[in-house]
Amino acid sequence: MPLTPAQIAEIEAQREARSETRRPTVPALEALLFQAIPCLDHGFLRVVDYMGDDGAIVQAARVSYGRGTRRVSEDAGLIRYLMRHRHSTPFEMCEIKFHVKLPIFVARQWIRHRMANVNEYSARYSVLDREFYIPAPEHLAAQSASNRQGRGATLAGEEAADVLAILKQDAGRCHDDYEILLNEGPDGARRDPAREGLARELARINLTLNTYTQWYWKTDLHNLLHFCALRADPHAQYEIRVYAEEILKIVGAWVPAAHGAFEEYRLGAFTFSKTMLELLRRRLRGETVEQAESGLSKREWAEFEAALGAF
Amino acid sequence: MPLTPAQIAEIEAQREARSETRRPTVPALEALLFQAIPCLDHGFLRVVDYMGDDGAIVQAARVSYGRGTRRVSEDAGLIRYLMRHRHSTPFEMCEIKFHVKLPIFVARQWIRHRMANVNEYSARYSVLDREFYIPAPEHLAAQSASNRQGRGATLAGEEAADVLAILKQDAGRCHDDYEILLNEGPDGARRDPAREGLARELARINLTLNTYTQWYWKTDLHNLLHFCALRADPHAQYEIRVYAEEILKIVGAWVPAAHGAFEEYRLGAFTFSKTMLELLRRRLRGETVEQAESGLSKREWAEFEAALGAF
Amino acid sequence: MPLTPAQIAEIEAQREARSETRRPTVPALEALLFQAIPCLDHGFLRVVDYMGDDGAIVQAARVSYGRGTRRVSEDAGLIRYLMRHRHSTPFEMCEIKFHVKLPIFVARQWIRHRMANVNEYSARYSVLDREFYIPAPEHLAAQSASNRQGRGATLAGEEAADVLAILKQDAGRCHDDYEILLNEGPDGARRDPAREGLARELARINLTLNTYTQWYWKTDLHNLLHFCALRADPHAQYEIRVYAEEILKIVGAWVPAAHGAFEEYRLGAFTFSKTMLELLRRRLRGETVEQAESGLSKREWAEFEAALGAF
Amino acid sequence: MPLTPAQIAEIEAQREARSETRRPTVPALEALLFQAIPCLDHGFLRVVDYMGDDGAIVQAARVSYGRGTRRVSEDAGLIRYLMRHRHSTPFEMCEIKFHVKLPIFVARQWIRHRMANVNEYSARYSVLDREFYIPAPEHLAAQSASNRQGRGATLAGEEAADVLAILKQDAGRCHDDYEILLNEGPDGARRDPAREGLARELARINLTLNTYTQWYWKTDLHNLLHFCALRADPHAQYEIRVYAEEILKIVGAWVPAAHGAFEEYRLGAFTFSKTMLELLRRRLRGETVEQAESGLSKREWAEFEAALGAF
Repeated sequence: MPLTPAQIAEIEAQREARSETRRPTVPALEALLFQAIPCLDHGFLRVVDYMGDDGAIVQAARVSYGRGTRRVSEDAGLIRYLMRHRHSTPFEMCEIKFHVKLPIFVARQWIRHRMANVNEYSARYSVLDREFYIPAPEHLAAQSASNRQGRGATLAGEEAADVLAILKQDAGRCHDDYEILLNEGPDGARRDPAREGLARELARINLTLNTYTQWYWKTDLHNLLHFCALRADPHAQYEIRVYAEEILKIVGAWVPAAHGAFEEYRLGAFTFSKTMLELLRRRLRGETVEQAESGLSKREWAEFEAALGAF
Repeated sequence: MPLTPAQIAEIEAQREARSETRRPTVPALEALLFQAIPCLDHGFLRVVDYMGDDGAIVQAARVSYGRGTRRVSEDAGLIRYLMRHRHSTPFEMCEIKFHVKLPIFVARQWIRHRMANVNEYSARYSVLDREFYIPAPEHLAAQSASNRQGRGATLAGEEAADVLAILKQDAGRCHDDYEILLNEGPDGARRDPAREGLARELARINLTLNTYTQWYWKTDLHNLLHFCALRADPHAQYEIRVYAEEILKIVGAWVPAAHGAFEEYRLGAFTFSKTMLELLRRRLRGETVEQAESGLSKREWAEFEAALGAF
Repeated sequence: MPLTPAQIAEIEAQREARSETRRPTVPALEALLFQAIPCLDHGFLRVVDYMGDDGAIVQAARVSYGRGTRRVSEDAGLIRYLMRHRHSTPFEMCEIKFHVKLPIFVARQWIRHRMANVNEYSARYSVLDREFYIPAPEHLAAQSASNRQGRGATLAGEEAADVLAILKQDAGRCHDDYEILLNEGPDGARRDPAREGLARELARINLTLNTYTQWYWKTDLHNLLHFCALRADPHAQYEIRVYAEEILKIVGAWVPAAHGAFEEYRLGAFTFSKTMLELLRRRLRGETVEQAESGLSKREWAEFEAALGAF
Repeated sequence: MPLTPAQIAEIEAQREARSETRRPTVPALEALLFQAIPCLDHGFLRVVDYMGDDGAIVQAARVSYGRGTRRVSEDAGLIRYLMRHRHSTPFEMCEIKFHVKLPIFVARQWIRHRMANVNEYSARYSVLDREFYIPAPEHLAAQSASNRQGRGATLAGEEAADVLAILKQDAGRCHDDYEILLNEGPDGARRDPAREGLARELARINLTLNTYTQWYWKTDLHNLLHFCALRADPHAQYEIRVYAEEILKIVGAWVPAAHGAFEEYRLGAFTFSKTMLELLRRRLRGETVEQAESGLSKREWAEFEAALGAF
């Protein structure tokens, strides 16, 4: 995450400034504000603004005139109740805004979350830096044999070295050629005075999908938690999971009661299907059931067993 | 807008509290925060939280590391550019939250704006106060003869008095009966110990559409301006226009550059259709065109003439 | 559901017309098309158009060139997989449109589902019929003592009779006065030539919340199932549940495989929280746990016990 | 647009099948159904399903029991009225679904239209074909000198040849290496038995942004027209404009009255800002105004002059 000295200075200047406000504030989140949290080899995540706190959830749920809060324990209880019954609208009353630097292939997954506001750095308008994501050796995974959409064992030895060499070489050459296509010198003048230079919006098509982009991304707490539920999940691609896990930590600092309820009723929970519930009842009555006659697929059976723990 | 002493005290307590924040703040909006701005006879509008300022718009448009602002004039120019070219996403980076008290028939128009977050006071769960909207005499309008969806002249004399009497009587009686149906005393006990009382979710169906409800409503600046464009328009029903006009004033205090651009490119602007543009060009070439052969309907022709001003 | 003869004739004419199409069709849904399914005392639900079938879900999931379907069993398996893993986007590829007649207080709950398209009958523009919802005697419920948002026992005897009398009288008088306020005769002329008549948009505020309105409502299958999950739930208010249950039957005729998966993984499923899962594992190990030391609230404990069935 | 023989056969089989339906059908759109309309060098656009017609717009606007249509001229008049007054909800009652093959950099612009449903071909799950967009020589544009986000003159001679050679070579090599990284033979077996092969979700990051992807994309007519207004605009990047222009032709076949209204009130229209309106009135009064004292920027002035035509 090589921020330039100018960028670091801008961030520091933002962190220095303080104002007085009548709005609810969250000291634990203020402490994180504007700081770049590293993600992957060149990416980051920065909270740049937020609205609301745990109190804003109960305030909206109660449609109250003041802060709406009573005792902390009562508020936490209400938040747990709302989360459990999927009363999602009070969670929409908190809003957060991030500045994110991320590889384009991660951005393509992220943008599928439609209930958010986005402003992306425009490569029609500006030139992209020479930065691309190269996996760390421990994340160079083979294709999973059992799951068409997953990763298998980590590559090793010569194959790993070859893979890294190819990724670096291709991304690097494509970016070198991007600069040749653009024909822009550091001062904006032509590098080669004999050539016009290709339009930025066309030159960028030569870049590889691991090139970094960046954007401002803003969403409400309900949609943020939904993002985390899908993207911090073990089935999500590792490269987006890194961001989702950092976001979850930020949620813990921002709205600890909502975060606790989310862990209890979503992350740590498990949904038993109708068939699973029947099997469970039979088991509790002492019956023995085998997968073959269970009505569950092998994969469902494995998840069922895992949920019951050690059985 | 009869706030109870307890409500006023809650609001005052909120206004008293101050915190330090690293987030951008807008002093002109801070000054308004939490205050109830009266709308109609018993309604109000209160800003209860906000995120961002004019600087947040340019920050997102530039995807910058710091505040993103340069000179005020440059920022205002960029905001005008964004508004003019309908680059709406940077305006989505500002968010605002209101507490609104409004008649149910106004709430039914308001809720049609889907890109917003809402928590409404629940009459399944709680009891609604005895407050209903009765138009002021100057807003008692007859049906428009020319526009099926509009108002004509103001009613006067005996007819006006009769109308007001009917509205007051029916709303009052329906609420009295609502309380009888509920059978709840002030202490929650039964008023009439011999009766059970009807479920709240059923008793409320006896209320009239001018009964007041309230909600927390949160949206982003782009959608807020769209709301204002539709609801502060002269064709909007007077009773929702009152709220939209107060919101527009709040926008002026909050994001003056965006507000100025909105006035220039939306509120004060006029769109000429393809046919109107052709007529305008003919007129500028010195031709005289009559409505009958213009290709415009009478209503379009009138709007065209009005846009050209006194012609 | 008193349709006028003219309305019945319009519906019949629609049902008569047949065209040839290359689009996928669902004979079981075609058989229902346009027919008014009665809901409550004067309401109805009509399917007026649809797009897609079970095959459209697998076609989109596979991004295939043709219908995308293989054997029926394979398709159903894929649909179950998608539902189980909450891959919701393929379900968004089916769309359905309803014409619904419903009381205003039901419409106010319904409209909270934002991911839909709506055109409501405008009482600014037209006059509302003299029809209001009066609960059948068996649905006249008392307020629940245990659940602030629920119904208790059915009212009986004199109290029930009084409640019905009040509801009928108030709605009827409010509508009578609405007509007086409007001062419109059947031919559009003034009833009382000495009076102007109040604007329609104002006169309607005198109506009660059980007055019927109607709208066209269109949504995709994913959002429709979410609507059903919330509104066909036993905690939903009876009056909207009636509509949601009819919609679920229609879903069964339209996309039987998706409907089956929805029953297996949503309607018939139960989510165990993190704490419930731990309790379940202790129970399976033979431990006895009491509610008091379980970490569950009494209500959660009751739901836990119910899910385990007879334990 | 090299469809394989198997794909062509699937499409033909779809086109052959006919069913009877009670739904409204549009013969002109049925004639186009499923056919691949070429876009760019390897892309296409196929209509795969639709719901509604011009009649569905008026049916919803009137909330009618039957088709809602009267005479064609009356319907067209109502549709023009709705378009002119930005009553957008009736246009949301028509829905259309496309199968699109498009370069990834175009997909990244397209996906910003959030009010749509999308299922994209997954390169986590499947392997992408060796197809990338290479601009035709006449679309190889230099960077615009006046507009940072636009194209200037067409490149020619040796520079054009060099640009094409670079684009082809880099995309080709990156795809060759993608296949080496995957190490999958045509039969799914390993190409090189000594290597594991990199996970598909990682190997794809080596591809360039001009690689083709494909998706199913579904939206309603209101949002489709908004897409066209932005993407068929001369300021849109040429490569997405190609698709938007084909979509506009399809709209003309599908809903001719809505298409006509869109041309009159959007595509062929021009919005005069508040300042422009004042200048126009001064000009109509015979005054001469220069840009420097007009209050308009140079670019606004140019647009103003262009709208007035030859002035």
